[in-house]
Amino acid sequence: MMKKVAVIGVGLTKFGKHPKVSSRELFAEAAFKAIEDAGIDLKDIEEAFVGSFLPDVLEHQGHIAPLMLDYIGLTGIPATHTEGACASSGAAVRMGYIAIASGLRDIVLVAGVEKMTDFPTSDVTEALALASDDLFEASEGLTFPGVFALMAKAHMDKYGTTEEQMAAVAVKNHHNALFNPYAQFHKEINIETVLNSRVIAWPLKLFDCSPISDGAAVIILASEDVAKKYTDTPVWIVASAQASDTMALCEREDLTTFKAARMAAEQAYKMAGVESKDIDIAEVHDCFTIAEIIAYEDLGFCKKGEGGKLIEEGETEIGGRIPVNTSGGLKAKGHPVGATGVAQIIEVVHQLRGEAGKRQVDGAEIGLTHNVGGTGATVTVHILRR
Amino acid sequence: MMKKVAVIGVGLTKFGKHPKVSSRELFAEAAFKAIEDAGIDLKDIEEAFVGSFLPDVLEHQGHIAPLMLDYIGLTGIPATHTEGACASSGAAVRMGYIAIASGLRDIVLVAGVEKMTDFPTSDVTEALALASDDLFEASEGLTFPGVFALMAKAHMDKYGTTEEQMAAVAVKNHHNALFNPYAQFHKEINIETVLNSRVIAWPLKLFDCSPISDGAAVIILASEDVAKKYTDTPVWIVASAQASDTMALCEREDLTTFKAARMAAEQAYKMAGVESKDIDIAEVHDCFTIAEIIAYEDLGFCKKGEGGKLIEEGETEIGGRIPVNTSGGLKAKGHPVGATGVAQIIEVVHQLRGEAGKRQVDGAEIGLTHNVGGTGATVTVHILRR
Repeated sequence: MMKKVAVIGVGLTKFGKHPKVSSRELFAEAAFKAIEDAGIDLKDIEEAFVGSFLPDVLEHQGHIAPLMLDYIGLTGIPATHTEGACASSGAAVRMGYIAIASGLRDIVLVAGVEKMTDFPTSDVTEALALASDDLFEASEGLTFPGVFALMAKAHMDKYGTTEEQMAAVAVKNHHNALFNPYAQFHKEINIETVLNSRVIAWPLKLFDCSPISDGAAVIILASEDVAKKYTDTPVWIVASAQASDTMALCEREDLTTFKAARMAAEQAYKMAGVESKDIDIAEVHDCFTIAEIIAYEDLGFCKKGEGGKLIEEGETEIGGRIPVNTSGGLKAKGHPVGATGVAQIIEVVHQLRGEAGKRQVDGAEIGLTHNVGGTGATVTVHILRR
Repeated sequence: MMKKVAVIGVGLTKFGKHPKVSSRELFAEAAFKAIEDAGIDLKDIEEAFVGSFLPDVLEHQGHIAPLMLDYIGLTGIPATHTEGACASSGAAVRMGYIAIASGLRDIVLVAGVEKMTDFPTSDVTEALALASDDLFEASEGLTFPGVFALMAKAHMDKYGTTEEQMAAVAVKNHHNALFNPYAQFHKEINIETVLNSRVIAWPLKLFDCSPISDGAAVIILASEDVAKKYTDTPVWIVASAQASDTMALCEREDLTTFKAARMAAEQAYKMAGVESKDIDIAEVHDCFTIAEIIAYEDLGFCKKGEGGKLIEEGETEIGGRIPVNTSGGLKAKGHPVGATGVAQIIEVVHQLRGEAGKRQVDGAEIGLTHNVGGTGATVTVHILRR
């Protein structure tokens, strides 16, 4: 009953530090690129969804959806801001998908944007803690490196996952980022770089953590009929799923998995009519290295507990069985939190169009994105197909 | 092509001061009432949208959609937070509407919630200023009473609208609130009360301004087939429209009207197949008294410039030609900003079901809600029909 939805245009800023560049300016750069890539006019856009997490706290700016659109000269259309912590723009993609799949719209702009680097790191860390439960977690001093350190320790205890295996995720993603001009870091590292970096929240070291970043990512979605008018290479969103979980970790049965990720993945595979083994490439939410290892398991790329082995054996490298985070991931591409969900879609689009240059995965036909909000209380999974 | 969407359950907290009661507790009270009113089980809910504006800034809590649902024992389903300043939950209603109209869902929970009174008024005023353009307005010291004072002065200059006419809006809404047990104020006032109250931002006096409030409002939406299983008195959402405008006032051609309100209203009337003269009751966004007068004009209840006359002649009182804000409106029912859009829907549902007690408008069949975000950069208009 739902109509087919295509991505017909993508636009990205470089991720990283953009001193004194506001989120609206980042958005505009990405939006104009996406509009040009799609070959549409500004006035063809019928609705917009903007995912962002912390603009009010960090930039002292709320009500950002109409603000961003106004900045590129587009007023009148419905413009809605979605917030789901670090999955803010994964949720926006799903809203855009629904708006078109329902037949309500033919062309929708979906954006993710975050401005983080002009502020003291302590302010950003505290702001990010808004994604966890203030009454039971953040107010007790548990910030995100601590949250993921708890998960890492639980995974190590239960499955024997090692610090070296976690480090291998960072090494792979830094390597992939070398070939991504939009990535924040272009620096090859090795296992020792990670292990010898300073401890942030044991067992996580500095190089186990994604950086603080600025960036924006914009995609143009279109209905089937319209997509065919504008492009010969539409990339279809064949599944759009979202699930939720408890907010506080203390309510979870198991710290070594994200239940919402498993639920969203299950729904997405069913919706797309594919299985985990059919996925050619995936962009997963490696906010910390342990999160990528857990993602392998939650998405069914390996059995539960074998994520550490999967990275160790090189299966998720470009050229491996299931290349993950060819973009460099959150770790090395950068993690402007609200932009990440859309940026993941863009990497998959680049791969499925065969435009990924030196990081191209040959013959990639089906790609998946996995965007985790906060401690996993929101997870979105999208599957795309060329 | 879109399916019919019904409101089958409504739940509201009392609006006003709830010292030390968090937004999640307010949400839970309203949610359980709505679920009971609908006669559904918690597990019947397939998706949720939560509108809220300032939880991160005021309560130090982001990622609120899964948090709220978790608090009532509902995890797993997609839960998305929409933000559009004071139209945050108007936008959430529209998302819920689309989710069902598209055929994607049969039962959706839509909430609005805001916790504002535990914080110093100066902090709240500053937080509310996040709804305007930080670079061009808020940073210059223009807070919301100032924004609406500019509009009031422009309306006075252009159309001869008087301070007495604005005061009459407050008098009417305070009168209506006497009969609404959920209202923040139960205090009859007169024109002199308003005119003699202290100046906040001339020409607006204290009683021209809506109060700072806590509150939550929840509705249960259902598809036609499902609605008929649960209720004999569904109220249909026959139009759901949203539009945007420039963020900064300096970019507007005319300060005496909200272009986005006129656009959303035009779309809504078209979608519902009705005209402004067919509307029996309306809940409009009277954050300041001048905003209600402008709403009359933008919604077509009178000609442009004749809003002051409309209130003066009593046409918008209960018993008048087009009763507006029978609930007491934002002015006297209260304005927990993120809750307002859903609360407006609830008042219309009460009226169309004939459950509005002493404030009942006889024979009301078609009702409209008008929810304005910030300076009008977001406006949602819904039309409901019994």
